[in-house]
Amino acid sequence: MKTTVAFIGLGAMGYRMAAHLPKHFDTVYVWNRNFAKAKQHATEFGTQAVELDQAVQADIIFSCLPTSQDIDDLIQDLKIKNGAIWVDCTSGVPDAARRQSEYLLKNNIHFLDAPVSGQTIGAENATLTFMVGGSAEAFQIALPAMQAMGKLIKHVGDSGAGFAVKAVNNMMMAVHLCAAAEGFTTLKAHGVDLNEALDCINASSGKSGVTETALPQRILNRSFPLTFALPLLAKDTGIAIDLVRDARLSAPILGLTQSLITTANSLSEPDSDFSTAVKMYESWSKITLD
Amino acid sequence: MKTTVAFIGLGAMGYRMAAHLPKHFDTVYVWNRNFAKAKQHATEFGTQAVELDQAVQADIIFSCLPTSQDIDDLIQDLKIKNGAIWVDCTSGVPDAARRQSEYLLKNNIHFLDAPVSGQTIGAENATLTFMVGGSAEAFQIALPAMQAMGKLIKHVGDSGAGFAVKAVNNMMMAVHLCAAAEGFTTLKAHGVDLNEALDCINASSGKSGVTETALPQRILNRSFPLTFALPLLAKDTGIAIDLVRDARLSAPILGLTQSLITTANSLSEPDSDFSTAVKMYESWSKITLD
Amino acid sequence: MKTTVAFIGLGAMGYRMAAHLPKHFDTVYVWNRNFAKAKQHATEFGTQAVELDQAVQADIIFSCLPTSQDIDDLIQDLKIKNGAIWVDCTSGVPDAARRQSEYLLKNNIHFLDAPVSGQTIGAENATLTFMVGGSAEAFQIALPAMQAMGKLIKHVGDSGAGFAVKAVNNMMMAVHLCAAAEGFTTLKAHGVDLNEALDCINASSGKSGVTETALPQRILNRSFPLTFALPLLAKDTGIAIDLVRDARLSAPILGLTQSLITTANSLSEPDSDFSTAVKMYESWSKITLD
Amino acid sequence: MKTTVAFIGLGAMGYRMAAHLPKHFDTVYVWNRNFAKAKQHATEFGTQAVELDQAVQADIIFSCLPTSQDIDDLIQDLKIKNGAIWVDCTSGVPDAARRQSEYLLKNNIHFLDAPVSGQTIGAENATLTFMVGGSAEAFQIALPAMQAMGKLIKHVGDSGAGFAVKAVNNMMMAVHLCAAAEGFTTLKAHGVDLNEALDCINASSGKSGVTETALPQRILNRSFPLTFALPLLAKDTGIAIDLVRDARLSAPILGLTQSLITTANSLSEPDSDFSTAVKMYESWSKITLD
Repeated sequence: MKTTVAFIGLGAMGYRMAAHLPKHFDTVYVWNRNFAKAKQHATEFGTQAVELDQAVQADIIFSCLPTSQDIDDLIQDLKIKNGAIWVDCTSGVPDAARRQSEYLLKNNIHFLDAPVSGQTIGAENATLTFMVGGSAEAFQIALPAMQAMGKLIKHVGDSGAGFAVKAVNNMMMAVHLCAAAEGFTTLKAHGVDLNEALDCINASSGKSGVTETALPQRILNRSFPLTFALPLLAKDTGIAIDLVRDARLSAPILGLTQSLITTANSLSEPDSDFSTAVKMYESWSKITLD
Repeated sequence: MKTTVAFIGLGAMGYRMAAHLPKHFDTVYVWNRNFAKAKQHATEFGTQAVELDQAVQADIIFSCLPTSQDIDDLIQDLKIKNGAIWVDCTSGVPDAARRQSEYLLKNNIHFLDAPVSGQTIGAENATLTFMVGGSAEAFQIALPAMQAMGKLIKHVGDSGAGFAVKAVNNMMMAVHLCAAAEGFTTLKAHGVDLNEALDCINASSGKSGVTETALPQRILNRSFPLTFALPLLAKDTGIAIDLVRDARLSAPILGLTQSLITTANSLSEPDSDFSTAVKMYESWSKITLD
Repeated sequence: MKTTVAFIGLGAMGYRMAAHLPKHFDTVYVWNRNFAKAKQHATEFGTQAVELDQAVQADIIFSCLPTSQDIDDLIQDLKIKNGAIWVDCTSGVPDAARRQSEYLLKNNIHFLDAPVSGQTIGAENATLTFMVGGSAEAFQIALPAMQAMGKLIKHVGDSGAGFAVKAVNNMMMAVHLCAAAEGFTTLKAHGVDLNEALDCINASSGKSGVTETALPQRILNRSFPLTFALPLLAKDTGIAIDLVRDARLSAPILGLTQSLITTANSLSEPDSDFSTAVKMYESWSKITLD
Repeated sequence: MKTTVAFIGLGAMGYRMAAHLPKHFDTVYVWNRNFAKAKQHATEFGTQAVELDQAVQADIIFSCLPTSQDIDDLIQDLKIKNGAIWVDCTSGVPDAARRQSEYLLKNNIHFLDAPVSGQTIGAENATLTFMVGGSAEAFQIALPAMQAMGKLIKHVGDSGAGFAVKAVNNMMMAVHLCAAAEGFTTLKAHGVDLNEALDCINASSGKSGVTETALPQRILNRSFPLTFALPLLAKDTGIAIDLVRDARLSAPILGLTQSLITTANSLSEPDSDFSTAVKMYESWSKITLD
């Protein structure tokens, strides 16, 4: 396609995501704060490592940074192409999306909050899920570029809706993690074989993404590989709770989970995977989930 | 097989489960308090409708009743065959299993607590999951009979362990239900399209059995069919919390969920499906999950 | 004293508070949006009803408005006397106090956040408690004016600290209210005489301001007079939870209480006293606290 | 008075309580498992140290032991005086009171569950509070003997009601303790002076027995004297939660508090005062309450 595409932020996710774009687009700019990584990407995948000012002359600009604050800092004073669509894949804050959307629209630039799920393996295989908030027209225009990197791409609502869905997804995962830790600690205290119990629950109504993946692959085998950091989960549960607060709702389970994840995070080593949150429960019960 | 098998309690689950036994066993007794149902079963599936005293002369005796209390009442004063194995598929109480097991063992009868999951459709298709507590030898002897009705059959521990796994499975499902209700209410309050959001979450880390099944098939379509009654879920969460209490553990999310399910149950119409628990959240937020 | 004092906002609290100032100060200005009330105050207590522009020429300016937002709106573009001290008795937001303090300091005006407790009876009798945040020097200068209206006047920290103490006080009261509702519902379910039980608890370690005052005077006698509105309590618990969030702390009991008060508020009639929160528990348990 | 009175169990409370009886009754028996203590009591206060069999020939028999289980063990096979009234001051279990009451009534002995509050200082000064369950007639007969040791003596309901009130009182105290720990940690995180804040709160609606006593006398001064052991508080919160469960109520704050106290207890040193539960919060927040 003739559309020019750019990708800003070549972290663990972005580096892999941007790799798929040259298969579908003639011109793909990449930029990264540590510019050596951009050059390496260009060499490896046939993208063009360019200065930030040039990258934002693309028709569709992807970004994937740690937080909404990083996006705020980045777009400040940038001269972005008139009519461009900015697709932000950060796991960001809904309020920030609305503010950034308004700010960019003044210069006729459309902002889509488009966080992804599927982890690095999904980025590698172009099977990510995109949950996208913003204008329906901009969504349609950016869709082919998202399809180059993802499998399920959904327009979930207006500006901020994408970030909201991601935050709630991660919050629900946090709830499921706490429930699994509490449930399996209880079973072990009663002498139940946890691996056999897990098989039963994964074939029953009590299963979750956590029981299907985190529990067998990270927790019961005591590997706890760092794939999604606990402080990021704590940040995301905080975003979800702010959504609850803003809407003046009552969400007791989500609120308590946020307290528990905050506690687990404050007790954990730096660079801990989110799955290490179960160690808080283990220290309380003197029971190890294995 | 020459082994004689009996099935006691031909409710929605039992009636369908017992139907598979004649395919594998020459002699299959059935008994039901409302005896007409037993006769109908015999006519329909080639089982033998017999008096309770004769039914308990089988080598392997299945039971499927509403509560552990019903089993207590039933086995009182029964003359059960020496050496028989009693397989109780009730969603019962672990302490009752241990007590019943001890009581029957005095007469050389082995008791297995063997609750099932998979609902009536699993009973119909012989694809149930059996989570079994009790002696490993008795488990091995009863295994072929369970395989006639189920797909995944697991020995999860000593007497009571089967009931414990079932109670914790249902408790986890209850947690997931509350989390889904709170999360989706929050999303709707922020203008998110719930069906699109659900697709995203079901492709992401926040999914659960509830988001995959109850949410699309019972809640978002507002059908709330009665498949698993809310009072039974309230009972099961109570069993799970008793397990937590007995082991002197701290399970804040499970505890709060039990409070919420108790509240939802006290506010609900009789014969409500467990999925109607979301209506409590809807009354709090004035938001309908559709 | 020669110091000129002003009081802005003659609501249920402010009207009674300002009445004490003429006993100690020669010149006392009063202002109210509904100006008739200011004139009435002047007639009744010997204060001077003046325009807002003149009121803010006083040396010490008190304000008592519903929310921090009202203060923001008020001080916008006002020409306040250079060197004045503004003492805000609103139950406000700590962040707003810091922002307002900075804003006013540019014009050499000191801001004290000085919320009060003691209700209208305390305002009437000049026995209020003042919890004050801001500069120690400004506190000392404003102290005699606060002493004219209060009994216990405490400097609790820098700007925002006064509002923080008030928010936490009210949050703790909300916790105590929920605990009392749950505890007394449980006792009544077990046939205990609540009035006798209350006497015992008020002589024991489980007592609280709620069991000493709200329970006997508002709840058990079913009077529920409107003295402190439930929506205001919901607002204050929200301020307290924001303090928890900002400090990245885990406060599970406060968090759950905020959920419960939010729910009770969403279920209540307009103009309900905070004590009507117990009716939520009554609807859950079908037990009336009388 | 001519009435014969006995006191069984001369622990920290019982020893001081029994000391008042000889001022009002001619014959006062005392018994203790470690009998040396009974003899010492007789020497010190003019009571009579007698064998257990003789002690239970008194008209009114007081007991004060660690748990209801100890009472069960004690009364087993005892030949108690026909028509006697047994007044149990243990912090016991309501169900046990009903069972013990029924058991003793077969031999025409009345059982009152009559736990006390007021700690050792109240026992010393005869200012205890008695919360009494059981028959109104027996209460009237035993009243003068209780008045010898207490100040507020209340008949709160049928058998078990006294234990219920004590358990709920202690549970409410546990809630207030958690609320105080969370609230004051939050205030300290925001730079508030805790001693000044405490003075304000103790003059306001957020006060409780915990803020008036435990916080200034045990926690903020870091003394944590052992006056009421944390494991006993954990036991009492468990009794209260069983009352909630038995009545099928929803008590989310009490339930969460029980989880938190269980956790604090599992993390604490042996022989820790209940006030050390705040150290759990301190380890979470890295904030010391001083």
